[in-house]
Amino acid sequence: VAHTHSRFATAWAQAARPIPCLGTTHADYFRGEVPLTDPLTGEEITSAYEVNTGLAIARRLESMDPEATPGALVVGHGPFCWGRSATAAAQTAAALEEIARIAYLTIGLNPSASPIPQALSEKHFLRKHGPAAYYGQRRTETEQD
Amino acid sequence: VAHTHSRFATAWAQAARPIPCLGTTHADYFRGEVPLTDPLTGEEITSAYEVNTGLAIARRLESMDPEATPGALVVGHGPFCWGRSATAAAQTAAALEEIARIAYLTIGLNPSASPIPQALSEKHFLRKHGPAAYYGQRRTETEQD
Amino acid sequence: VAHTHSRFATAWAQAARPIPCLGTTHADYFRGEVPLTDPLTGEEITSAYEVNTGLAIARRLESMDPEATPGALVVGHGPFCWGRSATAAAQTAAALEEIARIAYLTIGLNPSASPIPQALSEKHFLRKHGPAAYYGQRRTETEQD
Amino acid sequence: VAHTHSRFATAWAQAARPIPCLGTTHADYFRGEVPLTDPLTGEEITSAYEVNTGLAIARRLESMDPEATPGALVVGHGPFCWGRSATAAAQTAAALEEIARIAYLTIGLNPSASPIPQALSEKHFLRKHGPAAYYGQRRTETEQD
Repeated sequence: VAHTHSRFATAWAQAARPIPCLGTTHADYFRGEVPLTDPLTGEEITSAYEVNTGLAIARRLESMDPEATPGALVVGHGPFCWGRSATAAAQTAAALEEIARIAYLTIGLNPSASPIPQALSEKHFLRKHGPAAYYGQRRTETEQD
Repeated sequence: VAHTHSRFATAWAQAARPIPCLGTTHADYFRGEVPLTDPLTGEEITSAYEVNTGLAIARRLESMDPEATPGALVVGHGPFCWGRSATAAAQTAAALEEIARIAYLTIGLNPSASPIPQALSEKHFLRKHGPAAYYGQRRTETEQD
Repeated sequence: VAHTHSRFATAWAQAARPIPCLGTTHADYFRGEVPLTDPLTGEEITSAYEVNTGLAIARRLESMDPEATPGALVVGHGPFCWGRSATAAAQTAAALEEIARIAYLTIGLNPSASPIPQALSEKHFLRKHGPAAYYGQRRTETEQD
Repeated sequence: VAHTHSRFATAWAQAARPIPCLGTTHADYFRGEVPLTDPLTGEEITSAYEVNTGLAIARRLESMDPEATPGALVVGHGPFCWGRSATAAAQTAAALEEIARIAYLTIGLNPSASPIPQALSEKHFLRKHGPAAYYGQRRTETEQD
């Protein structure tokens, strides 16, 4: 797991907004939006705060595929990413920051910008990930996710 | 052809906005706006996606002069630039990113900023490009466009 | 005392807005908002301006704990930070700039973003500062504040 | 004279807005707003464009003190700065870009941010410039303006 307070991903977390899939840069790494956790209760904060932060992420992912969603935003806090290795998690953290940055700029130019069509996001994600991948640089075994 | 996911040009593509000619920095490189492609249909995405992306650019340029418009934005994706050499295409990609960046800042200061008068944009483009060019550093034969 | 004209903290001072505690990055350094001074009167400006700027900060802090609020914004001017050593003050100035930057981005994404719950900001501040601190790198005696 | 297409100053020029004096960073360099030229007519653009650009700056400065206003924005184009030496003009160009950048951020946080009181801007300008200057690093003769 890689946890950062990188600027743009943290800003989305502080703004309490999941990051919609606004372009193919995003779809190359995440299959759908970057999710946002629900806030912790007062009791979850005062007792075992760090564990409860992890549980909030786990709850948010219950209905999702963690390999297709390799990171999440903890509301009011910042991004947490994961992968099959520490290196893969850190690479995802760097990619998420870039995705968050371009999404911030997009919203600045068009506050009601729409997510790209699902056919396009699926195409970009699946041509790079999973058994039918055919595009991009071949990854070493360590990097695969 | 040079294709990047540079931040500001990609944000304009994701915001689904062509870049208007808001200043002389822009007019030094592009004769008029930086155009935006129409979205691909679902079928164009699922079959021969990469070829169809190229065809969408070609369709958008049908009524334009590709030497005066050395790049375009593919909606939801990012910028594609071209030129008489790979170096010229890459230089245009770098210039387009700067143009996109200053245009983003301009919109932040004045959401209804107007394009510059056509007399001014024509003056800037034509004093640097074409047979009557008289301004700027002389280019080597490779760089000319 | 460390005084800078760092970009984002100065922008909050020029915008005449205290920085609300929008996330845990902020709460790791400041217990509550970064305060903003009241404007000087014309007479305070023309006579002993530099001394009066200091007095405006002191007035603003009268009801606050200067160890839990290691910096303030002087309206129309910029940030001033302090600490038990010059190094500590400079470190706070750098942290404040990063806090101001992420808060700026947050407001861009959500103009009505709310401060985080007090239970969360207290948790983050107190797990790093004061007698019950248990989180983060141990500080040398010089760095402690 | 130093002419650049620096990002933030050019954005203000493209947005057709003079830069108001929003803080003391600005007042340390300019006595009042950074002025904006009027647009050129079509005929001024097609004949002797470069000379007419200079004349537009001169017209704008007619009622101002060029030593207290060491630069201006040409609408739709970008910043031009001057000084007693090329070095001084280039230093002003760098300062103007920083002023333009912080002013951009200020407007993002508070679109109706007010200029600082005249007593404050006069204090900052005059404690650094002119016969009664008493603040800041002593300048060499070349740097003085």
